[in-house]
Amino acid sequence: MSGARLIGVGVGPGDPGLLTLNAIAALNEADVVAHFAKAGNASNARTIAAAHFKQVAEELPLLYPVTTEIPKEDAAYRKALQAFYDDSAEAVAARLDRGQVVAVIAEGDPLFYGSYMHLHVRLVSRYPTEIIAGVTGMSGCWSSIGTPIAQGDDVFTVLPGTLPEYELERRLADTDAAVVMKIGRHLAKVRRALDRVGRLDRAIYVERGTMANASVMPLVDKLDTFAPYFAMVLVPGWEERP
Amino acid sequence: MSGARLIGVGVGPGDPGLLTLNAIAALNEADVVAHFAKAGNASNARTIAAAHFKQVAEELPLLYPVTTEIPKEDAAYRKALQAFYDDSAEAVAARLDRGQVVAVIAEGDPLFYGSYMHLHVRLVSRYPTEIIAGVTGMSGCWSSIGTPIAQGDDVFTVLPGTLPEYELERRLADTDAAVVMKIGRHLAKVRRALDRVGRLDRAIYVERGTMANASVMPLVDKLDTFAPYFAMVLVPGWEERP
Repeated sequence: MSGARLIGVGVGPGDPGLLTLNAIAALNEADVVAHFAKAGNASNARTIAAAHFKQVAEELPLLYPVTTEIPKEDAAYRKALQAFYDDSAEAVAARLDRGQVVAVIAEGDPLFYGSYMHLHVRLVSRYPTEIIAGVTGMSGCWSSIGTPIAQGDDVFTVLPGTLPEYELERRLADTDAAVVMKIGRHLAKVRRALDRVGRLDRAIYVERGTMANASVMPLVDKLDTFAPYFAMVLVPGWEERP
Repeated sequence: MSGARLIGVGVGPGDPGLLTLNAIAALNEADVVAHFAKAGNASNARTIAAAHFKQVAEELPLLYPVTTEIPKEDAAYRKALQAFYDDSAEAVAARLDRGQVVAVIAEGDPLFYGSYMHLHVRLVSRYPTEIIAGVTGMSGCWSSIGTPIAQGDDVFTVLPGTLPEYELERRLADTDAAVVMKIGRHLAKVRRALDRVGRLDRAIYVERGTMANASVMPLVDKLDTFAPYFAMVLVPGWEERP
């Protein structure tokens, strides 16, 4: 396994032009390109980076088990996921044991809320590992709409929309700038929390960030309560801007 | 000014390999490449991106006024800075009025705590503007040391080291993951705050992130109290990692 190397490759938020030179070099070098996806869905990371795949490389899709019938809070759900990550790590390890270079592509940045991290912690002590930082989904979102997010001595907070309403409210009142991720079915709750802390009028709703079919609007204008899981709400800081 | 365009170009955290394809395309297209620097210092953004400058492009250095004799809290300091940003914006506007494409290169991501934002807010209503998201300095830091920073439903907070000690302590106790920026002369204070909330042993000190002369160590091992302004402290979340 002289040449074996695991590379976590950030491919950015969606626009293939936001791949880095290092990411492209890793894809050129890789013997195996692995990517996570839900069974039956295309991997977003694959869609972003596919133009740079080498013809001879093996593709290794890592397909999340269909767990829709198990509630997310359930111990069985956690167990199924842990087993999936264990199996995925072993599938990658089998290639590394042959001396291959395995690039695991990840949307955004590999070590910032990404599935790659589950492979990384399982394999980092066993194989040489490298991380190629990527442009995050949230950077892609605020850049695509030209919204300065934080400046100077601003406190900046990333919050999951899954938090209880009182927690969202408390934290949104206590930060200069915020990004609320995983909006999905939490949209109405996030809107109420922002309204109560007097920041709804600053908030921007972003769906499919840097994709061609992006949808962006002031959150006050997003009147329905449906949003995809990966939608975000941006709350810009820098209140004293000129 | 038919072709005039202002482009805020993120050039990433330091490694020239972390430039994106879009950033390189913007540098190829630009008639003028502008960059901020302290008078007498090289621009970090320039150092990162210079290999991709077009020969024929004009370089427009925007040199911060020397304000070391004025305390940062002083109104005169703020006024000098505002005047500098006004003048810089007008220097850029003069090129745009000629119909030129001006790329303003920015370390990290242009709209995340960057000087470019001061030009952006002054010019966005007057000229066509585009932002090219970049890999942030903090992504560069945690990637260079392979440290997963946040996962799942973690709350992630960016804090300036300039905050009062009780504020740092309160906020570090109330987040899953954190990055403390602008460490400089605040190192001892940040260490005390982390110690008091029981998280000093998880904290990692990073100096010059992805540069060739990076310096990384557990914060407990950083015994002196000197740190450069741009040093960071990472406090990884994902406590339940396997």
